[in-house]
Amino acid sequence: MLLNLDCHSSTPLYRQIHDQISVLIDGGQLLPDQQLPPTRTLAQRLGVNRSTVVRAYSELAAAGYVASLSGSSVRVRQRLPFANRTAAAGWLQAGSPPSVAADSGGALPFDLATLAPDPRLAPVAEWRRALAQVLARRGAELLGYGEPQGDLRLRQWLADYLRRHRIDIDAEQLLLTNGAQQALDLILRWRIRPGDRVVVESPTYAQLLPLLAAVGADVVAVPMTVEGMDLARLSTVLAERKPVLVCTMPSFHNPTGITTSQSHRERLLALCDAAQVMVVEDGFVEEMKYAGPAVPPLKALDQHQSVVYVGTLSKVMGPGLRIGYVAAHPAVIHALTELSQQTSLGGAPLLQAAAWQFCRNGWFAAYLQRLHRHYRRRLQTLLRLLDAAALPGVCYQRPSGGYLLWLTLPNSKKSEDELVDALASAGVAVRGGRRFYPEPPATVALRLSIARLDEGQITTAAAILVSVLRQSLALSGELTYEHP
Amino acid sequence: MLLNLDCHSSTPLYRQIHDQISVLIDGGQLLPDQQLPPTRTLAQRLGVNRSTVVRAYSELAAAGYVASLSGSSVRVRQRLPFANRTAAAGWLQAGSPPSVAADSGGALPFDLATLAPDPRLAPVAEWRRALAQVLARRGAELLGYGEPQGDLRLRQWLADYLRRHRIDIDAEQLLLTNGAQQALDLILRWRIRPGDRVVVESPTYAQLLPLLAAVGADVVAVPMTVEGMDLARLSTVLAERKPVLVCTMPSFHNPTGITTSQSHRERLLALCDAAQVMVVEDGFVEEMKYAGPAVPPLKALDQHQSVVYVGTLSKVMGPGLRIGYVAAHPAVIHALTELSQQTSLGGAPLLQAAAWQFCRNGWFAAYLQRLHRHYRRRLQTLLRLLDAAALPGVCYQRPSGGYLLWLTLPNSKKSEDELVDALASAGVAVRGGRRFYPEPPATVALRLSIARLDEGQITTAAAILVSVLRQSLALSGELTYEHP
Repeated sequence: MLLNLDCHSSTPLYRQIHDQISVLIDGGQLLPDQQLPPTRTLAQRLGVNRSTVVRAYSELAAAGYVASLSGSSVRVRQRLPFANRTAAAGWLQAGSPPSVAADSGGALPFDLATLAPDPRLAPVAEWRRALAQVLARRGAELLGYGEPQGDLRLRQWLADYLRRHRIDIDAEQLLLTNGAQQALDLILRWRIRPGDRVVVESPTYAQLLPLLAAVGADVVAVPMTVEGMDLARLSTVLAERKPVLVCTMPSFHNPTGITTSQSHRERLLALCDAAQVMVVEDGFVEEMKYAGPAVPPLKALDQHQSVVYVGTLSKVMGPGLRIGYVAAHPAVIHALTELSQQTSLGGAPLLQAAAWQFCRNGWFAAYLQRLHRHYRRRLQTLLRLLDAAALPGVCYQRPSGGYLLWLTLPNSKKSEDELVDALASAGVAVRGGRRFYPEPPATVALRLSIARLDEGQITTAAAILVSVLRQSLALSGELTYEHP
Repeated sequence: MLLNLDCHSSTPLYRQIHDQISVLIDGGQLLPDQQLPPTRTLAQRLGVNRSTVVRAYSELAAAGYVASLSGSSVRVRQRLPFANRTAAAGWLQAGSPPSVAADSGGALPFDLATLAPDPRLAPVAEWRRALAQVLARRGAELLGYGEPQGDLRLRQWLADYLRRHRIDIDAEQLLLTNGAQQALDLILRWRIRPGDRVVVESPTYAQLLPLLAAVGADVVAVPMTVEGMDLARLSTVLAERKPVLVCTMPSFHNPTGITTSQSHRERLLALCDAAQVMVVEDGFVEEMKYAGPAVPPLKALDQHQSVVYVGTLSKVMGPGLRIGYVAAHPAVIHALTELSQQTSLGGAPLLQAAAWQFCRNGWFAAYLQRLHRHYRRRLQTLLRLLDAAALPGVCYQRPSGGYLLWLTLPNSKKSEDELVDALASAGVAVRGGRRFYPEPPATVALRLSIARLDEGQITTAAAILVSVLRQSLALSGELTYEHP
């Protein structure tokens, strides 16, 4: 067996040995059941450290090239030629694949589109320490399967946290999920059968709509007013359409940024309780409150346990950590836990435990404070510049928290796509409003997020935004004039 | 505002301040919009470090007790009374919750039931280092949302790894999932409509059955023979029942431990290709091969891309890490990626990146070697003791890998439950075979797993197993005699 090692190559020596032997096996120069030289012999022959050969052999064994009988004798294994790629199977040829929803926001210099928090503020050092702490204490346990409902310590911390937000709950009434998205998916899969009616706000969280389609829900849209969901319309819908579920996002609504009043929440809940309809409250970024009195969540007013509350820690702590949760009646948590076990065997206990450590160390509260300071200033900057521009025909409300500002352009003669493209070619990414509507919207709208840009960048982005919108609206003005 | 701190308490000082102030707010001694003393003032008054008060205030703010206007002035917020828990909502009162499948294996002294690998072998130190390495290099990125298909480096490593197993694939044809379980769920949700026929082996992976039920599949059971799925029966089923999907686990089949031959795989694939039926190959613990020639996966023989391969890294690396994957035609990966985004926004990039680092450092190969040594010995020990006992009426095959040994007791007059209970009361946990059958089984069977017990424990457990089985079978012998 002839091997040539290049000590100056960037490829590690063990890798060179591995690759050259695998080539000899692939090429048939080494035959099945043929024995490889013992590691010590080969190491001496090649003038390398024995551990280098051991590693090369172990990689070959893991790759199925050789059968390693606990290190002693190592033999080449029987193998087959590759399957060469030919025409796809008949069941595949029908139809081309659907495209994965592209999120191009990050590609442009000024990203007012993306909702995920600013990586420049990510608490990386804290997470590194939290992970090291829990791995040191509970490592072996945390690499194994977790508790069906999720890490008990984290659920206890969350229950404590929610109780301080007036949600009367204990760890048994919480289920940890792979982000709020999986929480919504589990709730709909458990509760909705094809044809069941589900009430959603219009506009609403765009990612809710494909989940509803997947379970075959019959979606009933109730328009958003400046106070939140149109309650007169809701009560008619409850009476006439007999929905089984109402989905709402009362705080920092995505996309409109609206936060409903306490009385609005009480009336909404009273209507749903009277109709005995389940309510899914998407807590979203409830924690991102910058000013004004704290309006308690619907779940805090929930006298009859009709509210299923969906929350998330990862949205602010780090969305990639995928730590959402459901707070609900034990019967609901029971059913959702079983479904979560069936469909994904639950979340990663290591991340859940590290999140607990992160919170336990007080880093969650401290990090929230930091985010609040930054995002409050960013939002104020954007609002100040838009106020100063006083664009005719552009409407928006002042959110009391969250990341979002929602612009509606009732008289725009330019289409949403034209506006989004004009802004994109000027370097500013925004979200067109259409995707947030369960049915075609009456008016053109744009969603702006302040999550990704600092105040300086927002200042520049806002200037571009203002000039592009002014042109478009001036133009539409002319058009109105030309065609009365 | 009167606070009393106990310096000798185990409760941290910041926490004592937080708790006492929140009590004052809850009790109404501190009223909405009332201002709290500045941090410096309170710190001096209490004789504590100012940072202690800052932390207490920031926790109060995060909990919604106070509104913190960037640290300067801190005010008590408006709040509501708790919702007291009364009767559950009408939509809840119908029916009691389903129970979450209990897995009591761990509770007994000798656990031959649990499949998850032995925590005593978990590569905790390696994982701590891998996590630290990737957090240091890509921390901020890894706390954010990941790529829709999962970490590119890990997919490239996997593609390389699979190519060495003769699966001709690149990173674009891979989707990372939250464990193999989510992979199966995504495939079924994408491919199966209510009423579609799906062929499964009988017995099969128990956790596959609820997934099939959830999508409304019409399950067609094809019995397992000692060579694997009964191909004569399969070809009849393909012709007469027109299934859209065939699920198979050709290596170290769960629960039977059977590994099919290359010719069996070729014939199974030829049948499915001729019928133009998609095949889901559950790779399960393919890596856990102890002896004999390496039989290539079905996917390696897949001339027409009709095989969707489901694999997992976490089953051996640490099941709690939830890192599974799908290898399939780009159109399939495309559709599954979209569904994964819709339903959970994908997996945790931090764990995927750390898994890549773990593999890249050569630790996966080394860890596999270690597991092989241990599990091979455990399996050999169990087989040696059962062989020596030569129990009449107990059949089993010698697996060439994996964790499982499948005992069938064709003539047992004792029921499965009686046997499982008898063993449990003697301290040995095993899995009854019934749960692995899509339809009531013809014979009593028990599944033994060697994953959790070392050789010493297996020796004791096997002794108990043998004596309990011998009693039962002797008894059933009498019964046969009494009732000819």
